[in-house]
Amino acid sequence: MDTDAKIALSEATLDPRDWSQVRALSHRIVDDAVDRLSTVRDRPVWREVPGAVREALTAPVPRTPTPLAEVYQDVLDNVTAYPMGNTHPRFWAWYMGAGNYTGALGEFLAAVDGSNLGGGNHAAALMDRQVVDWLKEIVGFPAGASGTLVSGGSMANLIGLAVARNAKAGPDVRERGVAALAAPLRYYGSDQLHACHRKAVEVLGLGNQALRRIPTDRHLRIDIAALREAIAEDRAAGMAPACIIATAGTVNTGAIDDLDALADVAAGEGLWFHVDGCIGALLALSPEHHHLVAGLERADSVALDPHKWLHAPFEAGCALIRDAGAHRGTFAVTPEYLQSTSRGLAAGDWLYEFGLQTTRGFRALKIWMALREHGTDAFGRLIDQNIAQARHLAALIDEEPALERLAPVTVNIVCFRYRPRPMDADAVRALNTEIMLRLQEEGIAALSDTTVNGEHCLRVAIANHRTRTADLDLLVHEILRIGSDLTGG
Amino acid sequence: MDTDAKIALSEATLDPRDWSQVRALSHRIVDDAVDRLSTVRDRPVWREVPGAVREALTAPVPRTPTPLAEVYQDVLDNVTAYPMGNTHPRFWAWYMGAGNYTGALGEFLAAVDGSNLGGGNHAAALMDRQVVDWLKEIVGFPAGASGTLVSGGSMANLIGLAVARNAKAGPDVRERGVAALAAPLRYYGSDQLHACHRKAVEVLGLGNQALRRIPTDRHLRIDIAALREAIAEDRAAGMAPACIIATAGTVNTGAIDDLDALADVAAGEGLWFHVDGCIGALLALSPEHHHLVAGLERADSVALDPHKWLHAPFEAGCALIRDAGAHRGTFAVTPEYLQSTSRGLAAGDWLYEFGLQTTRGFRALKIWMALREHGTDAFGRLIDQNIAQARHLAALIDEEPALERLAPVTVNIVCFRYRPRPMDADAVRALNTEIMLRLQEEGIAALSDTTVNGEHCLRVAIANHRTRTADLDLLVHEILRIGSDLTGG
Ligand SMILES: Cc1ncc(COP(=O)(O)O)c(C=O)c1O
Ligand SMILES: Cc1ncc(COP(=O)(O)O)c(C=O)c1O
Repeated sequence: MDTDAKIALSEATLDPRDWSQVRALSHRIVDDAVDRLSTVRDRPVWREVPGAVREALTAPVPRTPTPLAEVYQDVLDNVTAYPMGNTHPRFWAWYMGAGNYTGALGEFLAAVDGSNLGGGNHAAALMDRQVVDWLKEIVGFPAGASGTLVSGGSMANLIGLAVARNAKAGPDVRERGVAALAAPLRYYGSDQLHACHRKAVEVLGLGNQALRRIPTDRHLRIDIAALREAIAEDRAAGMAPACIIATAGTVNTGAIDDLDALADVAAGEGLWFHVDGCIGALLALSPEHHHLVAGLERADSVALDPHKWLHAPFEAGCALIRDAGAHRGTFAVTPEYLQSTSRGLAAGDWLYEFGLQTTRGFRALKIWMALREHGTDAFGRLIDQNIAQARHLAALIDEEPALERLAPVTVNIVCFRYRPRPMDADAVRALNTEIMLRLQEEGIAALSDTTVNGEHCLRVAIANHRTRTADLDLLVHEILRIGSDLTGG
Repeated sequence: MDTDAKIALSEATLDPRDWSQVRALSHRIVDDAVDRLSTVRDRPVWREVPGAVREALTAPVPRTPTPLAEVYQDVLDNVTAYPMGNTHPRFWAWYMGAGNYTGALGEFLAAVDGSNLGGGNHAAALMDRQVVDWLKEIVGFPAGASGTLVSGGSMANLIGLAVARNAKAGPDVRERGVAALAAPLRYYGSDQLHACHRKAVEVLGLGNQALRRIPTDRHLRIDIAALREAIAEDRAAGMAPACIIATAGTVNTGAIDDLDALADVAAGEGLWFHVDGCIGALLALSPEHHHLVAGLERADSVALDPHKWLHAPFEAGCALIRDAGAHRGTFAVTPEYLQSTSRGLAAGDWLYEFGLQTTRGFRALKIWMALREHGTDAFGRLIDQNIAQARHLAALIDEEPALERLAPVTVNIVCFRYRPRPMDADAVRALNTEIMLRLQEEGIAALSDTTVNGEHCLRVAIANHRTRTADLDLLVHEILRIGSDLTGG
């Protein structure tokens, strides 16, 4: 044996010694996954994690090896047996997509490909740009706009609000920070704004006070007159109004601000116009409801979330910015070791110049594969299907005397409560909380609760391609059953 | 047929009509992936993407469906055929891990499981916490410390610097922003700091000027005396020194700042002590080199990167914070629709309270599976193996008159150039750039270039579990061949 061969033998790798074993195990993993997903409807939506599993998941860091097949068995026993439940047809808690199997294949393929989407000259980087172009096309942005795939809606909003800050503060803000500004910047959104905007203005150093919450009308949309007043008031007080944040689909009730009216205000006042479209931007694909987001195409920046209504496996968010120069100008720094060349591996775009990450995963692939497989028309129809289902549920609630709806159903979110007779606020809250918990604990349905106009209620958010109308019939039936049990009725 | 069944039939889903076809395709995908990865050594490290493929990757958004098997064929033809190359044994460009097949299975399983790691009461959330605990254990942090898995090192550093900002500015900064501070905060790092820190202080609203770059010694480590002087100078000028950023493994040369000395300075001056350990924190696992990061355990916050020396598929970074209260106190906002209960789905921890994301993917699983499979001892040995390989390369370079080393090799990064005879700076730069490009274009090896002490050079960063020592022998051989061709020697 020559020296090289000896060295090679003494050198370790993470690759398996025997690929054929790993291949066989992979086939089993795929079969199990298909079995699990194709029968998800037959299982409870959620189950409590048993104590022994909790215990197992506190073991200290493993120093020595374990055969992969055993590791996989532990994953089956301790993890995939107790999921959150959001792949289940009756999961409607908080707000998220239900995932899709093609997307899971995409995650696998992306990880095997391994490319780093920080940029460079390779096919994955080209596909990343293509997916951003598709999303631009969907919201009606011009070809010259830019965008970046990010971890989710919170990051997409942060990117938009950061570009807004720098565009309105001027380029000096990068060097000198926000303390050097002559007047403090002000952002405006409705009192229904997602919490990530507060995180964003805080992390941006502007502070929570820089974000004015404008009251909403009875449809829970931002009150345009109140907004105009707030802007005028701030100007009079020497502040610098900078950015309007519209919400296209609030997380609480799905309300959609009047985007065209807000675009007019922003244009008239010289403000940046950001749309949080995490829930609603993709309504642009809907044959029946795209009019709800008319004006979206006038935004300076849009945050949207392929891991919601495109059901991409987590994580997949996207920030789109009309002015590509302002976008890159907010984030680009060119470090020495990332020198560009006109040929070779470094000849591509540096995608990391459009956000906060350097290394970036290949999240484009899972989105691309599902969009190619189904086509955007199918996603548009699925969006309409979820809206029809929400209206169906609303109608059932409205017909049922023991149920009370608390907010208009604009799209796919329904807020309501069980209240068979007049009860005080604490009692109705306790009753509905208990109903929510029993629905979860009995594995029937996962919903969450919220507060609308000061009233506690249950909330069903149907961003789920597996939900059938019959699942909502069942939900109402079960709520009435549990409610009646609890109230001794 | 009853009404329910009719409605169900008319309702669409993203699930395949025929799971057995998808199952068969999945088997093919797994086989192809194993084939691709097990033979990666036999292929060129990189190839230019052909024009026809570029063209295909600019097609507009697809409106209509395409059979999944065709979609997959397009992925094979247009994407996986032209990867960045970082899974290849001779990829040493920039700085990243090489991925691992178990991690790819983990990505698939995580996507099928679908759980949202924003939090809640489910097994994935428990595993997320377990992996953070493991990483705390590895760096020597106390059990009461906190942490969060993030998209990568850039985000991990941003999290650390954000908590530092709020800890030093006081809680009022969340409401009032940085402009309300009595004195501007100052951060200190070496002139070798990764570019993400500049992005971080800019996004935090502190401005690039808030980040003082301290000169480095001849080992490219921060000059402690110069740091002390800078702090004193800033205090005298009425500024508020807030945070020292140590680098444990600089991206340029792998230099490791003296962590113990910096911890002393930070303690003495009352500053936050952040360690950018994206490259080097995992040296704590190394049997032979853990002493290089002595003092790491004294940090207030550490950024580290499982997608580097643990070879997790992208994305996987982690921020660890000693003071869990300061961590949560920087990010937590409790919105109405995320109300907690003591039972059910919402009874778990809200993991989104420790960072900027709301929805979070299940990145813990791929890290967990590979750590269980191999054990941390194996990762420690692989780290030592990469360091031994870098020293081997350095020795070859030092022996070879036409090659010149430009920086000390602390760990796994080697900076050098081909310079067969005295040449002016432009000529040697052009020559080395051409060598780098030919190595890529001929598919031999991927390295990148950088500037060390003002001198352009080639840079080999060996964070690759597939690299063998013989690959480095080949590299030197090929550089000499191409260099000699180019110089007509
Ligand atoms: C309106 C709105 N904006 C932003 C977000 C945050 O998105 P993500 O969870 O992807 O960070 C959400 C999440 O539900 C949302 O509903
Ligand atoms: C020292 C250092 N810090 C931070 C980073 C950024 O890490 P990531 O690419 O994971 O964002 C890198 C990347 O190479 C690095 O080397």
